[in-house]
Amino acid sequence: MSVQFQIEATSGSGRLGKLTTPHGVVETPVFMPVGTLGSVKGVPQDLLEELGVQILLGNTYHLYLRPGVDTVRRMGGLHGFMSWGRAILTDSGGFQVFSLNELRKVTEEGVTFRSHLDGSSHFFSPESAMEAEIGLGADIIMAFDECTEFPAENERVRASMEMTLPWAERSKRYFEAHKQEVPWGDARQSQVTSRQSLATDSKACHSEKQRDEQSVFANQQPSTTDDEAPTQSLFGIVQGGMDLALRKESAERTVEIDFPGYAIGGLSVGESREVTREVAEATVQHLPADRPRYLMGVGTPEEIAQYAGMGVDMMDCVLPTRAARHGLLFTSEGKISIKQARYATEEGALDPACGCQVCRRYSRAYLRHLYAANEVLAQVLNTVHNLSFYLDTMRRVRHSIRLGEGTGSLSGVSSQPKP
Amino acid sequence: MSVQFQIEATSGSGRLGKLTTPHGVVETPVFMPVGTLGSVKGVPQDLLEELGVQILLGNTYHLYLRPGVDTVRRMGGLHGFMSWGRAILTDSGGFQVFSLNELRKVTEEGVTFRSHLDGSSHFFSPESAMEAEIGLGADIIMAFDECTEFPAENERVRASMEMTLPWAERSKRYFEAHKQEVPWGDARQSQVTSRQSLATDSKACHSEKQRDEQSVFANQQPSTTDDEAPTQSLFGIVQGGMDLALRKESAERTVEIDFPGYAIGGLSVGESREVTREVAEATVQHLPADRPRYLMGVGTPEEIAQYAGMGVDMMDCVLPTRAARHGLLFTSEGKISIKQARYATEEGALDPACGCQVCRRYSRAYLRHLYAANEVLAQVLNTVHNLSFYLDTMRRVRHSIRLGEGTGSLSGVSSQPKP
Repeated sequence: MSVQFQIEATSGSGRLGKLTTPHGVVETPVFMPVGTLGSVKGVPQDLLEELGVQILLGNTYHLYLRPGVDTVRRMGGLHGFMSWGRAILTDSGGFQVFSLNELRKVTEEGVTFRSHLDGSSHFFSPESAMEAEIGLGADIIMAFDECTEFPAENERVRASMEMTLPWAERSKRYFEAHKQEVPWGDARQSQVTSRQSLATDSKACHSEKQRDEQSVFANQQPSTTDDEAPTQSLFGIVQGGMDLALRKESAERTVEIDFPGYAIGGLSVGESREVTREVAEATVQHLPADRPRYLMGVGTPEEIAQYAGMGVDMMDCVLPTRAARHGLLFTSEGKISIKQARYATEEGALDPACGCQVCRRYSRAYLRHLYAANEVLAQVLNTVHNLSFYLDTMRRVRHSIRLGEGTGSLSGVSSQPKP
Repeated sequence: MSVQFQIEATSGSGRLGKLTTPHGVVETPVFMPVGTLGSVKGVPQDLLEELGVQILLGNTYHLYLRPGVDTVRRMGGLHGFMSWGRAILTDSGGFQVFSLNELRKVTEEGVTFRSHLDGSSHFFSPESAMEAEIGLGADIIMAFDECTEFPAENERVRASMEMTLPWAERSKRYFEAHKQEVPWGDARQSQVTSRQSLATDSKACHSEKQRDEQSVFANQQPSTTDDEAPTQSLFGIVQGGMDLALRKESAERTVEIDFPGYAIGGLSVGESREVTREVAEATVQHLPADRPRYLMGVGTPEEIAQYAGMGVDMMDCVLPTRAARHGLLFTSEGKISIKQARYATEEGALDPACGCQVCRRYSRAYLRHLYAANEVLAQVLNTVHNLSFYLDTMRRVRHSIRLGEGTGSLSGVSSQPKP
């Protein structure tokens, strides 16, 4: 069993779907919080569950360096290691090799790069990246690609795209030959699982909303109802820089290789947001309608709503979590910098329209104090709120699509500073 | 209404009691987690509730500097400001003025000191410290004292004690004249309270244990069943250095002033643990049996069990929370430094005998990884576990006293490094 994707409603180009993975159903369009090192910075897993997170993203490059793929594999993969029973997606490491390594050396064979931690030398090929991603055991893994830098000459963009295409083929070939090596179902896994079940039991009785969500995930362990053991799914990545013709060619040739889902990579690398939108919108047209489409590394709350309206099904971004650590909070009234003195005595909720546990319980004055006093709880609460805002935005997007409405201008979804 | 203290059982010198405050009942002997700046570093309030924390400690010195007493007062006091419906105790600031200020200047009138944050000059007298503590609105507040340095000549210790005694009288006089100014019941408070009730509702259905705990706190808001409005309670502090005769004199003269509870201050200031124990044990004898006794600033898990056995009812210490931030974790097998490489692949729970949410859900390998990778979640989870270990230790202490057993050598309560 691989992922299954089912479209339930459409509105314009937007699609409402269900992505069934070995670790539960993901309602799309979905925003995936980033858990770089096996943790969404500062947020315990049970809070992520309460927020309704259905799929998390892990970074192969970071996890490969720390704690190492072998350690994660022995713990039953990322699910067991971080005690997360719902779906996970890992990137291929290509983007970090590109963004964190100025001294990388790329050949047809693969990429030699230095660790940003200790300068040690490492090598990723499509094969070794797949080996790492199989060891990490995410439900959805990404083909190894070269993320083309920006700006780049047309010739360089073509060369880079021509590099990524055979890497996609090699990624698929290695994956197909080794996908049974996924660490799920291992004896060790069941041990970790039993601790996890206990944790789930103790949480068994929350709000009604949560009970509903839990019933969706009644079977959080890999399903083995059909004879075939569950496996991961490998998605391809479209490159081609900011050149729409190359994007079209990259999309068509990647689709020829045939993957159960496709990502649009190589955006949010320094180009203007207008260009990002233009390239994403043009590229999405060339991706098959019956497969999930994943736009990597975007965006603001209003952008993720707009992209969903263009037919993008999956997105991820560090923005909500990173902004939270800098005290930048998204609200229905606009973006707030909580460190401002104007909030020091404000008794109201951060966002009166938000139902997250932070807005239900704490005042702006308290959040401002925690941030100003450099209290760690500021990071925890700010991150919970921003994630909640993103997830709520996507809930509203899905609702709009179901009603046949547009998603481009949801009220209260703005990234502009609060007046 | 002030605090009420009821002893339910004794075993040797140990006492099992119920301390009824305007914000709920506290089962004693109790360990009070330290929430210096209105937050137990890294732990959201709902997790503290789940841990069964019945009373928190706040530091007047720190809260006076940030966010300032006026801000807290306007939010309904610390309860409203930090959205904490259970009991709170604040210290008087005397200890921080002593420990964080090398340039302080003490006169009969009070202490001039410099902020450790920006060097600005401030003045605390018994009256201004009481004014601050009334503004913060904790259920139990402490008289302003001078914490005598260690080591100190006998003459200096006596002079310091002779300073603290009239300060205790002045503290009481100011408190009695101004105790109706406590910020509870303010219109602003009820606003914060309604947000708080919502938060409580969403948590209304946890484990049975938690339901039990919540029923104890059915009325978390100040009780106004009798005509008299609820007020804070002011405790006196015994000083006298390491001199047992001065301790006796300080205790007797403080008791003459008459407080609803008494603390033993001036310990854990650099003396050996043996001396701490000796002085605490000798001093406790001179405190009235029908009033709660609070030993300030201790200790390890085995020490808090031993002190409870000597008849101490309340304790606080930064050890569990501070050690957690350094990866030092208390377990039934001894103290663990989670950063050690030996834990990198250990799949078992941190403490198999512990039922906290960290031990139920995560492996040692995961906790080691989070700590080694400097992930903020390490601090959150480590703190939750250590607090759970301390609170469980006190639950077992109370159980032992109820059974008429000693508390000095509970199995699995050790501060020694794990072999």
